[in-house]
Amino acid sequence: MMTKLLQFHFMRNSCILLLFTLLLNQLVSAQSAEVLTIRKHGAKNADVVMKEFTEFLSLPNVAADPAGLQKNVAFIMAMMNKRGIQKVQLLHASTNGVPPVIYGEVMVPGAKQTLIFYAHYDGQPVNPEQWAKELSPFEPKMFSKAIDKAGAPIASPADGIYNSEWRIYARGASDDKAGVAAILNAYDAIKKTGLTPGCNLKFFFEGEEEMGSPHLNEILEKYKSLLQSDLWIICDGPVHQSGKKQIAFGVRGDTHLDLTVYASKRPLHSGHYGNWAPNPALRLVKLLASMKDETGRVTIKGFYDDVTPLTAFEKKSLNEVPSVDEQMKNELGIFAEEMKGTTLSEAINLPSLNINGILSGNVGKMASNQIPTQATTVLDLRLVLGNDWQRQQQKVIVHIKSQGFFVTGNEPTDAERAKYEKIIKVIPGEDGVNAQRTSMDLPIVQKVIAAVKTTTNEQVVLQPTMGGTLPLFVFEKYLNAKTVTVPIANHDNNQHAENENIRLGNLFTGIETMASLMLIK
Amino acid sequence: MMTKLLQFHFMRNSCILLLFTLLLNQLVSAQSAEVLTIRKHGAKNADVVMKEFTEFLSLPNVAADPAGLQKNVAFIMAMMNKRGIQKVQLLHASTNGVPPVIYGEVMVPGAKQTLIFYAHYDGQPVNPEQWAKELSPFEPKMFSKAIDKAGAPIASPADGIYNSEWRIYARGASDDKAGVAAILNAYDAIKKTGLTPGCNLKFFFEGEEEMGSPHLNEILEKYKSLLQSDLWIICDGPVHQSGKKQIAFGVRGDTHLDLTVYASKRPLHSGHYGNWAPNPALRLVKLLASMKDETGRVTIKGFYDDVTPLTAFEKKSLNEVPSVDEQMKNELGIFAEEMKGTTLSEAINLPSLNINGILSGNVGKMASNQIPTQATTVLDLRLVLGNDWQRQQQKVIVHIKSQGFFVTGNEPTDAERAKYEKIIKVIPGEDGVNAQRTSMDLPIVQKVIAAVKTTTNEQVVLQPTMGGTLPLFVFEKYLNAKTVTVPIANHDNNQHAENENIRLGNLFTGIETMASLMLIK
Repeated sequence: MMTKLLQFHFMRNSCILLLFTLLLNQLVSAQSAEVLTIRKHGAKNADVVMKEFTEFLSLPNVAADPAGLQKNVAFIMAMMNKRGIQKVQLLHASTNGVPPVIYGEVMVPGAKQTLIFYAHYDGQPVNPEQWAKELSPFEPKMFSKAIDKAGAPIASPADGIYNSEWRIYARGASDDKAGVAAILNAYDAIKKTGLTPGCNLKFFFEGEEEMGSPHLNEILEKYKSLLQSDLWIICDGPVHQSGKKQIAFGVRGDTHLDLTVYASKRPLHSGHYGNWAPNPALRLVKLLASMKDETGRVTIKGFYDDVTPLTAFEKKSLNEVPSVDEQMKNELGIFAEEMKGTTLSEAINLPSLNINGILSGNVGKMASNQIPTQATTVLDLRLVLGNDWQRQQQKVIVHIKSQGFFVTGNEPTDAERAKYEKIIKVIPGEDGVNAQRTSMDLPIVQKVIAAVKTTTNEQVVLQPTMGGTLPLFVFEKYLNAKTVTVPIANHDNNQHAENENIRLGNLFTGIETMASLMLIK
Repeated sequence: MMTKLLQFHFMRNSCILLLFTLLLNQLVSAQSAEVLTIRKHGAKNADVVMKEFTEFLSLPNVAADPAGLQKNVAFIMAMMNKRGIQKVQLLHASTNGVPPVIYGEVMVPGAKQTLIFYAHYDGQPVNPEQWAKELSPFEPKMFSKAIDKAGAPIASPADGIYNSEWRIYARGASDDKAGVAAILNAYDAIKKTGLTPGCNLKFFFEGEEEMGSPHLNEILEKYKSLLQSDLWIICDGPVHQSGKKQIAFGVRGDTHLDLTVYASKRPLHSGHYGNWAPNPALRLVKLLASMKDETGRVTIKGFYDDVTPLTAFEKKSLNEVPSVDEQMKNELGIFAEEMKGTTLSEAINLPSLNINGILSGNVGKMASNQIPTQATTVLDLRLVLGNDWQRQQQKVIVHIKSQGFFVTGNEPTDAERAKYEKIIKVIPGEDGVNAQRTSMDLPIVQKVIAAVKTTTNEQVVLQPTMGGTLPLFVFEKYLNAKTVTVPIANHDNNQHAENENIRLGNLFTGIETMASLMLIK
């Protein structure tokens, strides 16, 4: 949600009104003078920010396109050099071809603390056919509002005045090129407005986050001394669904299982063999149906057993999180939550099992009367504090076996087909990430909370756990470092799916948020 | 399965061996002199037949490509004209753009009976990505045997000698361009060997069979007098899995339901919403899982109630059908049949419910951590005598409602989303086809059985019901005509799926089968 000032400005107000509102804000709000200075600069320079950001979004950033990722790396390095950031360099894993981390730093004379700002430049895979017909993942386009709410295309404004409700659509727009852009533009604004950072700043932009950060541990270990800091600021994920800013002190963990159920070795005509030859899709749906009961709870033995309960303080913060359940149900067109009586905030603090995708045969115009040879699904397991990702995978595998399946890691052999009625290939994801939580009581964390509060008149929501998974436990493991997540994207950004977008108001207030942190003394 | 003669010939025997075998066959077998003449001609002219057939297969024949279907029409008319078939013409439906039927006839002086030969030139939809990498649906390629049994590519033989085990891969290779080719080459062989058909011949090649023949009824009614006959010979589908020839006196009926379950209006991040937002794939798998019990029987109320039991004579024929259950389980890599203790022959005489396809989100490399917005499935319902396709659809819909779903024919509105927890769009197929059965006791049907027996030393399998669905009931309804199905394709032809193929031995013995019928007096 935009502050009033920015809304007014975007509504083509006059300079007089702008100044008046600036003064008014200073008188009545918790917002600091520095933040208002940054805001004014942001409004004036919106065109420059947007031009650079649009160019950034036009660079493909998926793992399947290493050349595209390289272009992102070069672009970000140029952004950093242009801003006079020092020691701009690439941090490489030992394996060739791994997208590097981009590092840089700003040492402030007399500063006693160091904050390191994290964002990632890689994006989730894209299936362009699933995007709205007027969109293409790497041809960023601006719309007057969300396209599913009748947003219309908008050209770059000749007067350089952008409306906070406008959105840019592209893969990475919110997850997480917005993070990179907010961090670097915050530093730029501090510098250009003559302010000085209150602490030393380090910048760390990762290129494998959407792959589960397989080389992050290695890089942290290798560059341990370079990466020393008092706190990592993770700029990724969405703000609260109410539009209020939020700080998250932990994240859900995540792991996957790929399952493939086999039936006949070749596809069969459903007329000649239907009823007699087993159908792999039926076998898979029976298996998946056995994993949750009618109340939406996972029925896999021990699924909830390892969970570390929330402390009293965490429960209190959770209770103060504004309820968005009814708003979200209405917005999403959902009649009821999956687990009756469990709020969204509560649900995020429980491990989950989600069907990311299921496929067997064809549907729609491609459908044909066949019994498919196999049926595949990808299960996503989100984890909370106490869960271990490999232990959680094993619980699912034990359940699959309890349903009468022979579990293999390969395509079944003829001998296996002759021996077992129900055969499933299970490929457990090797890139699991455990959940993590940082204490809200640390002095540096208290400063972060106070800083974000200087940017808004509204409540700053404090979340024990964010839904999104970031590899935060590795910072603790390899650097003994603490992390706090300060997200900026709008909650309805479609991250990880088609039609990803960022609301411009979120990008610009995100710059203010990052700047407030850089001013911490 | 090839007769010995053709096998020998294909094994590059000498002319002397060929003649000797011809004589031997005449002495010891039930095979008629006429059939042996046709066979000899077929072996000599294999190159001509194969060249024409390959060209035919290279013409795309899917409903989505009307121009491709037109090329097939022109090609078949040219085939018929070249063979001196009379009154070659197109039978059109009243609607523009409907693929026409191609008709032709041969009136034989003194003939007392008329047989009309049916095949279809359209094919099932193709998804080229699902085909083996060395194949393309409309670039016919020859292999030494089935490619899933390590068949190697084969060029056209310079000496014109083809092996019966070789296969041609292309959409329509077996279903049902092989039918068109067998019928027209049978007539060609009769003519070129100086034989005379024993009855009047009519030819009827349809172009909408894979669409469920939506205009067949109209065309039969419009051209009623032209299409008078004593019996329709339907050349479509596979021979018995044992390789023995077979005649089928009925077919399963068929109908469909397209189901789409809805959840959130936009895709959601499984970390931020997983556990709280309902997953449409989970809803769909629970629904589908409720449709069959652990013994493979459909649990939908009344699903088996309408079935007309087999007569004593039909049961006797069914008992004489060679059991292929163990062979097929072995060949298909299946441990057990879906309904324990029910043989393939028995299963085909029961209505079935098959999941043709299911899709939600993405799997494999395209998978992402999202809760999809919808989940779709296509259900195929096969029918037997007594079932009515619309009644059968209704049973499924009643079951879906009993599982707590609100059933709609459209995308759900916001009001519906706010009112109903479980929402499903059900699109019942409008092109259902009921099952059909012709009595084995009719004199003309007895002649057909006797004719096919003249082409082989082996048992001719008599099936009360074939698994494949053909719109046979419409012939009875609009023309008061009887039908008998005489298939020729190999059973492992992958019809309706990727990698469709025909075994050359089946094409050539198919020509003999069709010729034997044309010689009926």
